[in-house]
Amino acid sequence: MAESWSFLDTFEPNFRPLVVIELAKGTKEETIEWFTKRIVDKKANGGEYSMIFCAQLLVKPLEMENGDEHIYLVGASHLRLLLGAENVGLVKECNDNSMRTFTYSSRKTFKDFADDNHNFLTMAECQYIIKHELENLRAKDEKMIPGYPQAKLYPGKSIVRRLLTSGILVQIFPLHDREELKKLRHSWYGRVKVGYQPLDEIRCYFGETIALYFGFLEYFTFALVPMAVVGIPYYVFAWEDYDKYVMFATFNLLWSTVILEVWKRICAIMTYRWGTLLMKRQFEEPRPGFHGVLGINPVTGREEPVYSSIKRQIRIYLVSLPFVCLCLYFSLYVMMIYFDLEQWALDYHEANESNFSSLMLFVPSIIYAVVIEIMNRIYRYAAEFLTSWENHRLESSYQNHLILKVLVFNFLNCFASLFYIAFVLFDMKLLRQSLATLLITSQILNQFAESLLPYWLQKRHKKKMKKRMCSLKTETDLPLVEQVNLEKEMGAYVGTFDDYLELFLQFGYVSLFSCVYPLAAVFAVLNNITEIYSDALKMCRVYKRPFAEPTANIGVWQLAFETMSVISVVTNCILIGMSPQVNALFTDSKTDLILTVALVEHLLLAIKFIMAFVIPDKPRHIQMKLAKLEFESLEALKQQVRATDTYNSEK
Amino acid sequence: MAESWSFLDTFEPNFRPLVVIELAKGTKEETIEWFTKRIVDKKANGGEYSMIFCAQLLVKPLEMENGDEHIYLVGASHLRLLLGAENVGLVKECNDNSMRTFTYSSRKTFKDFADDNHNFLTMAECQYIIKHELENLRAKDEKMIPGYPQAKLYPGKSIVRRLLTSGILVQIFPLHDREELKKLRHSWYGRVKVGYQPLDEIRCYFGETIALYFGFLEYFTFALVPMAVVGIPYYVFAWEDYDKYVMFATFNLLWSTVILEVWKRICAIMTYRWGTLLMKRQFEEPRPGFHGVLGINPVTGREEPVYSSIKRQIRIYLVSLPFVCLCLYFSLYVMMIYFDLEQWALDYHEANESNFSSLMLFVPSIIYAVVIEIMNRIYRYAAEFLTSWENHRLESSYQNHLILKVLVFNFLNCFASLFYIAFVLFDMKLLRQSLATLLITSQILNQFAESLLPYWLQKRHKKKMKKRMCSLKTETDLPLVEQVNLEKEMGAYVGTFDDYLELFLQFGYVSLFSCVYPLAAVFAVLNNITEIYSDALKMCRVYKRPFAEPTANIGVWQLAFETMSVISVVTNCILIGMSPQVNALFTDSKTDLILTVALVEHLLLAIKFIMAFVIPDKPRHIQMKLAKLEFESLEALKQQVRATDTYNSEK
Repeated sequence: MAESWSFLDTFEPNFRPLVVIELAKGTKEETIEWFTKRIVDKKANGGEYSMIFCAQLLVKPLEMENGDEHIYLVGASHLRLLLGAENVGLVKECNDNSMRTFTYSSRKTFKDFADDNHNFLTMAECQYIIKHELENLRAKDEKMIPGYPQAKLYPGKSIVRRLLTSGILVQIFPLHDREELKKLRHSWYGRVKVGYQPLDEIRCYFGETIALYFGFLEYFTFALVPMAVVGIPYYVFAWEDYDKYVMFATFNLLWSTVILEVWKRICAIMTYRWGTLLMKRQFEEPRPGFHGVLGINPVTGREEPVYSSIKRQIRIYLVSLPFVCLCLYFSLYVMMIYFDLEQWALDYHEANESNFSSLMLFVPSIIYAVVIEIMNRIYRYAAEFLTSWENHRLESSYQNHLILKVLVFNFLNCFASLFYIAFVLFDMKLLRQSLATLLITSQILNQFAESLLPYWLQKRHKKKMKKRMCSLKTETDLPLVEQVNLEKEMGAYVGTFDDYLELFLQFGYVSLFSCVYPLAAVFAVLNNITEIYSDALKMCRVYKRPFAEPTANIGVWQLAFETMSVISVVTNCILIGMSPQVNALFTDSKTDLILTVALVEHLLLAIKFIMAFVIPDKPRHIQMKLAKLEFESLEALKQQVRATDTYNSEK
Repeated sequence: MAESWSFLDTFEPNFRPLVVIELAKGTKEETIEWFTKRIVDKKANGGEYSMIFCAQLLVKPLEMENGDEHIYLVGASHLRLLLGAENVGLVKECNDNSMRTFTYSSRKTFKDFADDNHNFLTMAECQYIIKHELENLRAKDEKMIPGYPQAKLYPGKSIVRRLLTSGILVQIFPLHDREELKKLRHSWYGRVKVGYQPLDEIRCYFGETIALYFGFLEYFTFALVPMAVVGIPYYVFAWEDYDKYVMFATFNLLWSTVILEVWKRICAIMTYRWGTLLMKRQFEEPRPGFHGVLGINPVTGREEPVYSSIKRQIRIYLVSLPFVCLCLYFSLYVMMIYFDLEQWALDYHEANESNFSSLMLFVPSIIYAVVIEIMNRIYRYAAEFLTSWENHRLESSYQNHLILKVLVFNFLNCFASLFYIAFVLFDMKLLRQSLATLLITSQILNQFAESLLPYWLQKRHKKKMKKRMCSLKTETDLPLVEQVNLEKEMGAYVGTFDDYLELFLQFGYVSLFSCVYPLAAVFAVLNNITEIYSDALKMCRVYKRPFAEPTANIGVWQLAFETMSVISVVTNCILIGMSPQVNALFTDSKTDLILTVALVEHLLLAIKFIMAFVIPDKPRHIQMKLAKLEFESLEALKQQVRATDTYNSEK
């Protein structure tokens, strides 16, 4: 890259702002100077390590109305971005339609590449590259951040992370592209149309993680349609024959296995097209919150905080695990109180029937709903605190532990009362009622809290901002200043966690008790159609643009959905076994009934596992392409070894 | 490698024979000349493809008493072997105790490497390298094997494989090293000692696949000891309390999960030490039997036979699958006839009691045992034929399909009668009896048929050979000629399949009905101790030395054992539920009993899955070492890209 780096000039005529850096107001001059210098300075040629002390990006202060300079715009020259794309290991399509890891030296072989085509990298990719470069800016020999002696540094520590944790850096976020966004909005939800979402465009604008979520949401909605279609006649004709219910449940259970397996294939097709399926996992740096005694990382040999794994295990198994169990117990306890209250309200209503008493009938449900919501929130904070306290070194491991904690608790909180009604009270009518109530209210509340409320707040805020801006119409680049000021006040999108969680719980409502309430799938489909629109609105209008995050699959959620589908085999078999129609068939022997149910359940589980085993996770043509790439890289390795040898022997 | 290859001289003063090639008697001169020339010729420098037309090995004809030259010894110079080690991607230990892929240019960094140390590569590794080089000898522009117009060739076809399929090449096998073998025998089973097997030495001599089998056998035996110890008092004191049985079964089920998970860790430790855990998977060539229309392989772009995957799927699902099902049905049918016969013999005995009638009681069992054996053999042939007819491109996929077919059938054949006795006849006493009989007789028969019989045959053959050789004591290199003549007549070791199958069935006997017959583990332990010795004897004395085969785990057997342990949870729960002691506890309600049993079963299964999920497959220190290597390779890649760029820009 020797010549390539020296090509780079720090100033380009056409500076395109990509990322905004907001420093705290009143940040010391020397700090700003040092930081911008590190961002702008040329990378030295030579050792690998010197590459990471300077980013060689472009920085421009955003001139505010009051002359305050605490917001900076970061961009990069086209060449710099291409080199950065190589650094992050971006995979792009070649001229021969195969996907390959981009390298600057082989740039001519890539599709749509031209030295003057600045659209070769999407804006989301450019922003991802800049974020990566900024986060990888490392301290050289500074002991602290200049001007802030309390903000300690050590060689190799990410500067941006230290600036963030010490509050000097308020936020870094990518800018929206007004024009692109408008186009995207139009094709996504702007016109009334029947058809798929523009997933490729969403991916270009928001990155793979978010596009994959919308892809999954869409796929899941389509996958629920057969269930909904099969379920409608049960409701319309009020079918109550046991054989029809068994048919429906069996169809549902096998169908849920099929859709989860097929999703893996569709996901592979999509992420292959996007290049993330092939993207090599980068070496994961410690997460910002990770702390420990400064030591030598045995893997990298670099100086960084180290924290004993045994201590972490102790924290997980001796503190977090008991705490989660306690919370689960407490949640069950609250549920029991709710049922007691319910019973008490019923008794009270029967004893002295009045308007007041019939109103009292609703009180327990309302109290319970509120308490559940409060518990969910408190627990979420506790889970985040505990997982953070467990001090995971990697963000991925932190996320997995957090998701596991939250999932288990949410599962119990949402479904415990249904399980209780179904398998302790044996009240199918109440179960159907509760299920419908829970499903529909949770969907309405979610839609409201997730999108419409923030959208309304955002609109109000925008109006206020506009008013303020109107008074200063004289500035030259007002639109950009206005845009930055608007966007920096927008809420930050916290990731796809809550969206997936919602889908996960919905999947639970649909599949766990599918044979009792076949209509659940219909409501889920209706909800998801509006969900797509409200989520799209949320992404485009309400939140700050998030940084793109390359990803190859939906990760731990695949496992979560699969586990749910296994649990639903068990629940559905029990429900069918308990139904009066089936019981009527086995009048003489209850034992036979239970044995039959157990046998059917085991058979279904076996079929599920065999199906999951037999259906390949990747479609054949993707497998072939991956095999081809692997073969080529093996051949290239052989060639390279030979070439290096020749080169060495020629020396 | 330019200079390296030219270093190589075809003749070395100290030729060490490693591999024997036996051609058919009366093979045409021109064929022999052409074949040996291809083996000996220098590899041309230049394009990758030209590397595979010649092997640059050493060949020497073995002079027989009658002057017949149809057996050839193959060796290679030390340098050639080192270059070959790089070709096959061997992983060796470095001076800093880390494991790295060997390359000739970095040879000095490896432990124990010295230019004159010919023991750097073990003999098994050398033989593996030679086998790899021979198998990779490819046709250049020959249309057929010279002298045999019917043996067609096409560019890129493996010459050795065509020679083998057309019968010109009788066999290729590696030579034993008498001295090493003696040492190995002594430390393995030569002296009476308590201790572990010399697995590292076994691996050096026989390669990783076989060492891993013996490692698993040893580990499995040790893992069974706790079960055996816990099981003995049940037999001695004739414990029949239900709580003790439940305890034993629970212990067994959880224990079997633990041992299977721990094995993965131990396996990772071993294969890391041996280097195979890190060995990159080589690109798999089509298996010898694979045929199809000549076309272009879409993955490699090379000309080779291609066969449509859809055709193969059709053959698998429309022919093989129904056939297997039919066989399973037939096997069940035969079992039912056996039970009828048994009943008839019993009736006959009761009707006219005599010596003849009591003898008649044994007849059904004997007939059934013989029929099972015959069915097993016929089925094995049918399975091999079918799997071969399915025309799998890769050896690994052929093996997987074959193993699956044989496993399912053997499982049913061995356990169907026990299942019938347990869950249809409900006769626990008969079950215990049958289990004991089946287990013990199968063990005795196996030991006899597997090792002692071939050993005896081999000994007889050796004596005959010795007599013949004695008459020609004049030849110079008689010992070598004698050795080759002896070894070429020895049976070929067909792989670890049957050995693993035996262990798998044993695991079934021990775990499926563990709560009925706790003594099974004791017999299994006793059998396995002698099995280690008899298998060792078999490897060292009876069979031809097999080629070493690098492997990182026991492959599909891990899955098979895990599946068996899941099935055994189900069977044990049912057995306990059926026991009269447990039934006595639930006198008033059989329903409660069944529900309790089902609940316990689901809990146990859940615990199993959680345990399998929580226990990491690789120990932490291995994980760290792997992470370190991955980090280093990522860093090296970055460096290399930069270096190549610098090199290109300097040009």
